[in-house]
Amino acid sequence: MVPKVTSWDVARMAGVSRTTVSMVLNKSETVSLSDETRRRVLQAASDLGYKPNSAARMLVRGDTETIGLIISDPAILPIDAFIPQLMHGISQCNREHGYHVLLEGITAGNSANPYESMVESRRIDGMIVLNPRSDDPNLRDLIDRGYPVVLVGSVRHPDELSVNFTTSEGISAAVENLVGLGHRKIGTVPFCRAGLIGTDVRLAVLRRELANHGIELPDSHVEHANFSAESGHHATRRLLERHPDITAIMAGNDTIAIGCISAAHALGRSVPEHLSLVGFDNLPFSPWLTPALTTINVDASLQGKIAAELLIKRLRGEPITERQIKLPTSLVLRASTAQVT
Amino acid sequence: MVPKVTSWDVARMAGVSRTTVSMVLNKSETVSLSDETRRRVLQAASDLGYKPNSAARMLVRGDTETIGLIISDPAILPIDAFIPQLMHGISQCNREHGYHVLLEGITAGNSANPYESMVESRRIDGMIVLNPRSDDPNLRDLIDRGYPVVLVGSVRHPDELSVNFTTSEGISAAVENLVGLGHRKIGTVPFCRAGLIGTDVRLAVLRRELANHGIELPDSHVEHANFSAESGHHATRRLLERHPDITAIMAGNDTIAIGCISAAHALGRSVPEHLSLVGFDNLPFSPWLTPALTTINVDASLQGKIAAELLIKRLRGEPITERQIKLPTSLVLRASTAQVT
Repeated sequence: MVPKVTSWDVARMAGVSRTTVSMVLNKSETVSLSDETRRRVLQAASDLGYKPNSAARMLVRGDTETIGLIISDPAILPIDAFIPQLMHGISQCNREHGYHVLLEGITAGNSANPYESMVESRRIDGMIVLNPRSDDPNLRDLIDRGYPVVLVGSVRHPDELSVNFTTSEGISAAVENLVGLGHRKIGTVPFCRAGLIGTDVRLAVLRRELANHGIELPDSHVEHANFSAESGHHATRRLLERHPDITAIMAGNDTIAIGCISAAHALGRSVPEHLSLVGFDNLPFSPWLTPALTTINVDASLQGKIAAELLIKRLRGEPITERQIKLPTSLVLRASTAQVT
Repeated sequence: MVPKVTSWDVARMAGVSRTTVSMVLNKSETVSLSDETRRRVLQAASDLGYKPNSAARMLVRGDTETIGLIISDPAILPIDAFIPQLMHGISQCNREHGYHVLLEGITAGNSANPYESMVESRRIDGMIVLNPRSDDPNLRDLIDRGYPVVLVGSVRHPDELSVNFTTSEGISAAVENLVGLGHRKIGTVPFCRAGLIGTDVRLAVLRRELANHGIELPDSHVEHANFSAESGHHATRRLLERHPDITAIMAGNDTIAIGCISAAHALGRSVPEHLSLVGFDNLPFSPWLTPALTTINVDASLQGKIAAELLIKRLRGEPITERQIKLPTSLVLRASTAQVT
């Protein structure tokens, strides 16, 4: 086993009590200690290669230097690369600030309050919650009680800390591109059922932007998928079988767009010759699909980084000027949209 | 703030000392307590809704019920879905057993011992290390010292606990498929530079299987990629520009295969008409690529689940019958391989 140097060893070598060792190493300011004592303790700790037990430090300082990353639907993790992008950003920021990430999946529809056990275990100082339901009462309650939470998404609470994208620039540019290419019959395959803030807001924005060009988006032009390429394939088939006159599709994410391409292919249509396609997220593989995917760029890694920074600021009691941060989106034009034929 | 019920409150209500509360709740067996005392403490804890502080519990019991998940190269996380698959399996198993996952990225080439600080912080009871370098001396040392580690990969230590795939069935079936379709000039785009056990072993197996059919795999038919579709695209272009006579490619993973398809396309060749392609991993999107990808199936989520089970067994001191577990692979035939023309 790994040999353990304890605070007893440090105390013995420095000729002080264990409490003194703890006060020096935890930079306690409740008792004044001489510089000489401090020096002796630090020297002994250094000579012995002593690292304070984090459990002990948590008790003394009351913090864990750990952030909970709560994934509302863990089944999504392996099927769409958006969450891994976010996690990457969160991890990077945490490493810079000396924080750790505790990964927790919760399953929606569970009757018990899934956050409470995380809060009460005191394993974490605060949490980042991904894709909460916009009406989640447990999260709203946690925010009311002042627990440190940052949302990637929103529960429509005026005091929430959240990091989201302003989807309007990206969607507006995509609609402009499609309309400019002559498309008037446009369908969409949202990434998830209604109820997540992302799905609802994006659909409303898409409707508004199309309306600005005098184009209607009837409900029958909307076919919900569920994050995956498979769900995108099936939703696109349903949509195109119902409305063969649709000439362009806005996919809810780039993984769904993979399934849109193969669904069109299965119906004897190719992208972009017989169907224009716009993705969402600009995942790392998207420029390398065939055809290269035109998509709305969001920087998920940056979103994760900013969410972590916001939470760490909150934990450290630093001033927060902007509680609901909105990151920009933009259209990346590649090869999956073309003139309507 | 969240109101905190402390062990003081429980002690007061039960009419016992705080130490007694701690001994009852942590099921300590060093002191015998009357059944009546136990009952009173449990009743008070239940009435007050008291949950012991995990930091205090860690100190008392000496374990954290937390597993470290160490990702050797965190930059891979957002670009290939294999790690998210694994994480999903690990999380599932941990939830079942009441363990938490602490996510840690380490960067290869860092001169300091990156595992030591994790071990010494005592935030975790043990670790699962993904994709270690096969000659990593720090990991070999940790295993020598008896620290609980499970490898997804290998450092060729006789005592290591590891979970890997027997790639030979899958690769053998893929080679048989390609040779049966008339392919003799076969290239490969491994998922990473040489040095990871996965890359080295797979290349050796592929060479052996091809040799069984009298086919040579010269070094110039091997072009290393780096997990991503982008790297797969560029490696495939280099390979096909150097050897236009290659008619089939074995890709190191399915994400790389996306780039192989677009590289072939850029060179005026389509898959499978002018180039046959076999992927590796069978990711969730792979059946929905165009063409649907023929690939070697590995169950990464199962690998994660088994790695977590093995580590938890080790932590609980349960008997371990198999220290180096090998999971099977198989070929999934779809539409990306065809008769050579």
